This record gives sequence, C-alpha cells and structure tokens, in this order.
Amino acid sequence: MSKVVALKCALCGRTFAQEAGVKTCPHCGVDGTMHVFYDYEEVAKTFTRRSLAADSRHSLWRYDALLPVEEGSVRPNLQVGWTPLYDEPKLAQRYGVASVKVKDDGRNPTASLKDRASAIAVTMALEQGQSTVACASTGNAASSLSGFAAVTGLNSVIFVPETAPIAKVTQLLVYGAKVFLVRGDYAQTVELAMKAIEHHGWYDRNCAINPYLVEGKKTCAMEIAEQCNWDLPDIVFVSVGDGCIVSSMYKGFYDLKQVGLIETIPAIVGVQAEGACPIHRAIQAGSNRVEFGAANTIADSISVGAPRNWAKALNAIRSSGGTTVAVSDSEILESLCELPRLTGVFAEPAGVAAYAGFRHMALEGRLKADERVVLVVTGNGLKDVASAQKAVQSAMTVDTGSEGLEQIEAFLQGEER
Amino acid sequence: MSKVVALKCALCGRTFAQEAGVKTCPHCGVDGTMHVFYDYEEVAKTFTRRSLAADSRHSLWRYDALLPVEEGSVRPNLQVGWTPLYDEPKLAQRYGVASVKVKDDGRNPTASLKDRASAIAVTMALEQGQSTVACASTGNAASSLSGFAAVTGLNSVIFVPETAPIAKVTQLLVYGAKVFLVRGDYAQTVELAMKAIEHHGWYDRNCAINPYLVEGKKTCAMEIAEQCNWDLPDIVFVSVGDGCIVSSMYKGFYDLKQVGLIETIPAIVGVQAEGACPIHRAIQAGSNRVEFGAANTIADSISVGAPRNWAKALNAIRSSGGTTVAVSDSEILESLCELPRLTGVFAEPAGVAAYAGFRHMALEGRLKADERVVLVVTGNGLKDVASAQKAVQSAMTVDTGSEGLEQIEAFLQGEER
Repeated sequence: MSKVVALKCALCGRTFAQEAGVKTCPHCGVDGTMHVFYDYEEVAKTFTRRSLAADSRHSLWRYDALLPVEEGSVRPNLQVGWTPLYDEPKLAQRYGVASVKVKDDGRNPTASLKDRASAIAVTMALEQGQSTVACASTGNAASSLSGFAAVTGLNSVIFVPETAPIAKVTQLLVYGAKVFLVRGDYAQTVELAMKAIEHHGWYDRNCAINPYLVEGKKTCAMEIAEQCNWDLPDIVFVSVGDGCIVSSMYKGFYDLKQVGLIETIPAIVGVQAEGACPIHRAIQAGSNRVEFGAANTIADSISVGAPRNWAKALNAIRSSGGTTVAVSDSEILESLCELPRLTGVFAEPAGVAAYAGFRHMALEGRLKADERVVLVVTGNGLKDVASAQKAVQSAMTVDTGSEGLEQIEAFLQGEER
Repeated sequence: MSKVVALKCALCGRTFAQEAGVKTCPHCGVDGTMHVFYDYEEVAKTFTRRSLAADSRHSLWRYDALLPVEEGSVRPNLQVGWTPLYDEPKLAQRYGVASVKVKDDGRNPTASLKDRASAIAVTMALEQGQSTVACASTGNAASSLSGFAAVTGLNSVIFVPETAPIAKVTQLLVYGAKVFLVRGDYAQTVELAMKAIEHHGWYDRNCAINPYLVEGKKTCAMEIAEQCNWDLPDIVFVSVGDGCIVSSMYKGFYDLKQVGLIETIPAIVGVQAEGACPIHRAIQAGSNRVEFGAANTIADSISVGAPRNWAKALNAIRSSGGTTVAVSDSEILESLCELPRLTGVFAEPAGVAAYAGFRHMALEGRLKADERVVLVVTGNGLKDVASAQKAVQSAMTVDTGSEGLEQIEAFLQGEER
C-alpha cells in the first residue's frame, strides 16, 4: 500500500486523494503542478533523528518512510544517494562567506542526481506490474532511467533531442535502451514522447506528468540536512532546467519540517543559464506565470525553454525565501575549471551552474559574511567532456627521449618567466 | 611516524628497514619489486573485526592502521573507497556458479580504482613537504592524481601517451595539471616521466618506483572481505596491466590474514587483453620472468606491454593459487554491453575486462557450480565513451510530430517481427 495520502495542485491548491490517480489538476489543466503529501503525523511517530542515526542504509532508502513506494516492494540493486557533502573552507574564504559545502551528486550510479528519481520510478513501475518505462530527456534522466531499467529487468524507451551529448546517448545504448533521437528541441522531444507513452501505456518518467520524481530527488535535501548534523545552511544553490530539482530541494526540507526534524527551510537559490532562464525572468518580474521561449546554453541539462515544473519551481523558490540568478555560458565554463581545481569535484556544465551562480552573487556582494552555503552538483563532468574541452587549454605534446626532456625543460622555464 | 616497518623484495626476498628508503632492490636492480610490511602483531591488538564494525569512516581510511601514512596527518578532502559490492544472482545463474558479486570501483571520486593509490600518494607527498606530484599513466592514474593534487593544493605534472582517450586528458586539464602528451607508447612515456621526475625531485606516483601505491589499492580487497561479512569468495577476477592492482588484491587479503581477520586468501585471477598479455604468458609458461613486448588492445588502461610490477604480480597470482586468462577485444566489447544490461554497472573496457575473463572461463567450463566469485570493476564507462560507441548500435533518428510517431510505430513493429 502506498504511503502517499494526497496530491495537491501547486497552482490552485486543490487536494486530491491518492486513490483518485490524478496526474494533471482537472481544474487548472496544467502539467507538472502536483505535490505529493504523506500522513506526516503518523510518519513522525517512528521517523526521527535518532531512528535515522541508527539506520545503516547509506542510500536514499533511509528516507523510505517519506517515499511514495510500498513497504517491502523490490528496490533496484544499485546504491543511490548518500553522496558526499564536502566542507570547502577554501571556497568560503575566497568568496567571503561563513562556510561552503559541496554536495556531489555526480557520485550516483549513473553519475547524476537523476538517479534518485529513477530509483523511485522503476520501483513504482514494478509495483504497478509495468514492463516498460519511458521518458524524454536532455540526457541525464534518460541514461539514469535506462540504467535502472536494466538492473530491474524493465525495458526502457528513451526520447532525446538529437543534439544530446554523445556520452549520454552512448550510455543509453550501453544499457540496452530503445533510443529515439528526435529532430527537434527539448520541448518537441517531450511532446513526441508523451504521445508515444500514452499510446503504449508505458510507465512515464517525465517530470511534466509524474509527480513522484520530485519525491526521489528530495532525498538530496534530506541528506544535506542530515549530513550537516541538522545544523542547516542558510542558502542552497541548485541549477534549474525543468524546475523539478529545485522543487525537490524545497520538498525535501518541507517534509523534514512537517515531521519535526527541522524547524526552518534554507533559502533556495535557483541558478539558470542566461540563454535559458524563463523561471529566473518570472521570479525577477514577480510574475505567477512563466513565459516559455527558446533555449540556448552550453549546459545541456538545463537548456530548457519550456520548463514543465514551473509552478512547483516558483513555489519552491518563493516559499523558501530564495531567489534566482542567471549566469552566462562563459561564467559556467570558468566555473567548470575553478570548482575542480579548488575542490577535486569535476562537474558537467549544468552540474557546475550552482557554483557559477554562487560565485556570481558573491562577486556582486549579494552574500553576507555570516552566511552558510550549500552548492548542489547535479552531474559528473565525464558526462560532457566536449564542453569541458572548451574550458581548458590543450596539453603540450613532446617527443620521447632526450629531445622530450629538453622540450619539457624549455616549457617549464617558459612558465616561470 | 610511518607505521611501515620494512620493505621486502618480491624477487630475492631481501628485507630492508623502512628508514633505509630503498625503492629499488640494490641486489636485483629491478623496479617495482618491493613489498611493504607492517608490525602486524602490534596492529592486531586494536585492529579487529569488531573495531571495523564500529568504524564510521566509510572510506579507505577505515584501514588506516595498515596504511603507510602517519597517524593524524592531513587526508585529502575527497571520499574515496567503500564503493558498492553488488550481489548479482542473474550473473551467477547465467554462468553456473554459486554467486557473483561486482565491486564497482568506478564509483570513486575521479571514477577509477586508482583513486585509492592517489589518496595515499598525496598524503605521503604532503607528509614529506613536497609541492609537486608527478606520474606517467595511460590515463586513469593521471586523472586521479591530478584530482587529488588539486584538492590538496599540490601541483601535478602528468605524462600520458598521446593516444590516451580525450576524456581522460580533458579531466587532467580541468584539474589544472601540467600535461605532457608523449609521442610514444606507454613504456616510452614512463621512461621520459621517470627521468623528468628524478631531475626535478617531484613526488613520484609511478607504480614502477613507488611501493606505497599498492598499499592504497589493497583497500579494495579489504573492503571485499568486510562487505562479504568476512565470508570470502573463492575467486576474485581483476584486470592486469602494469600488475599493480592484481598485486594489491593479494596484498589486501595478505595483510588481513596477518592480523588474523581472515584465514584464507581467495584465488586471484588476472585478466589481460590478448593484445597485451605478457603476465598471462609468463604464468601459462610457468616462467619466473616476464617477456616484454608490444601492446595493442581497446582496453587502454591495461594496454601495457612492459608491466612494471611483474614480479609482484606473478607472486600475487601464484601465492593465491590463482591463474590468468586472456580475452580478445571483441570479448571485451561484448562484455561492455552485457555487464551494464544485467547489473546497471557501466565500465570502461579495462574495467569490464574482469567480467570478460570470468565469462570466458565460465563458458570454457573452468568454473565450478559451488564457486563464489567477485569481479572488480576498476573504472567507469564514462571514462572512454569512444570505445563504448564501438560496442553499441546507433540510435534511430525520428522526426517530430505525427511523422515521428509513425516512424516510432514502424520501428517497434519491425522489432516484433
């Protein structure tokens, strides 16, 4: 039996019983607006700081009591979640804040935060007796879903824009997914996928339709709270594409507050790329609607002009007392080198966007000296080496033997001068 | 103070006090033969199964008592080790053995097992007051070292053959390493590196010279023992290039046996690529020497014709009662897809070699039905997407809208026929 008791529309506030199976609010008719709620009073009886401290599951399943899966149903055999949260005093000093912590979600099984959602998706698909899962994705959600489908014996059908980085597409094919490269942008890819998924009755892992993905992703926020020993940061920076991850950060803290494990929710700052920042524009304009538009940024995972979870995203940012910031592609590329050189964490462009946004606000003097900051890295740098190449100088080629030694010395002396 | 008490030559058996600082046995004059030993009796007093069970460090530092680093010296701020060990009943059933477990060391900070050695290398370099670390590498050891150098504030100088996969070279540059691409093979690259390193007095992270790298890598074996709840497998499969990792697997079990935590050592099977299998040839011929030769395999991380740790590798394989097996590149490519489709673990060619070797021996009927097997995956598949591309069919490109839907239906119907 599912532990979810109700779904609530982020736009109109109407509540629906879980049994009704509502995915899109019948009143608002907008996709991607549904929040998932639990019987928090009941959960709070046994789910405590102490029960967590005694829980040896170092994965997202330690938060099972607040996940939309059935007790005792089959879980995918991949270790997902409980990724490192690094304290980075060098960053704090450099940018003049009290502390900076980096949450490296590129350490998940398929190397992105999306694994948290896929773990939930395949578990629910199996519970429902489905044999095929499907999604449209800029890449990470897809490779994640195909990996989790593979390990659970499900078929996966994936729709990606044909411009998706080859590493991500290859990862899909390696996992045995049926992959359709769509001659169009992300919005068109989603549209095509939704039609095919509806036609075939496949389990839908699109965040526009499936309200349970946020529930998997929220465990990242829960881990941050627990790994900070419940002494929460003031601000959490996270990149924003569809708006699903930023919503999930808020939801994770919200759920912890509902069960009495924390008292306040950190301000959540959503970072978008300048070339794809519809949510940023809405927040800055104080608007309750998001204008869709084109998307053009090197950070493919957040290259989203028509964010499907805009309503939940606006809610999350505003309810947390947060804000948004837009960063240029050149800021992203600068950050792509700066972050690993200071922390050892190599992130893909969208993964490093949170850092770029933090840096941007710090350099503009918008962060206070006593503020404690967490940066969420959403994907590993190896996911998109082509972009990383744009950020670095090329290496020096040398010969073997004594000629090589001379070339090396000449180079090193040249550097010293 | 270092906890190491002695070094012992794998060839002649001569022992040297740690203080003597011997790297190459003065009697044998061969590089890469030195074993590192501790005061096992002293360690055994406090390092027990119970002390480990109570240890909350989920990283290689839980084995600190048997590592060549000083107590309380600075450790790099990256979470390395304690990677997942997955039970894979599907593999056991498919290949007719009692159990198969997969150790996914691609989940380390820079996505390979080499991080275990780099963690030790930078810790020792800092202890010794060095400011620069250096190595030659086919790629993984280098990107690993550069990542660990970055986070500890050390400079890194890296020598790679110019044929190294671009993902690995880019990773180096992102971490801020000085990179020299050498116009030669791996052996020539090592030779050039060793000369430059000696000339400048940099800390040497080459496994040919540095006997302490095995000490970091051995923690993988220690984790296997602990994660199996001390109920050890019969066979551990691991890929072999330079021979450093296969040596470390034996050393990890050996050290645990010395301190009384285990009673027997599993048979260690070294898997080489047919195009680069000098250690395999020596084992099959019963020879005490290894003939160097050319190297040609898709598995770049084990494309080593002149293995620097051959003496320790022969020792490890023979002392454990193990053997070697050589696999073709096409077996490696088949395994590269088969492993992720059955387990969700995506490995680079050298990382999947252990699985290919296991499969090879199973298909030849050389494994028994009651045998329990562990496969060590040494590196993540995202490290070498170009090779993975060779293993998969390309994806189907479709149009948007109703045309796309028709193309998808036609494709799916074609598949069913």
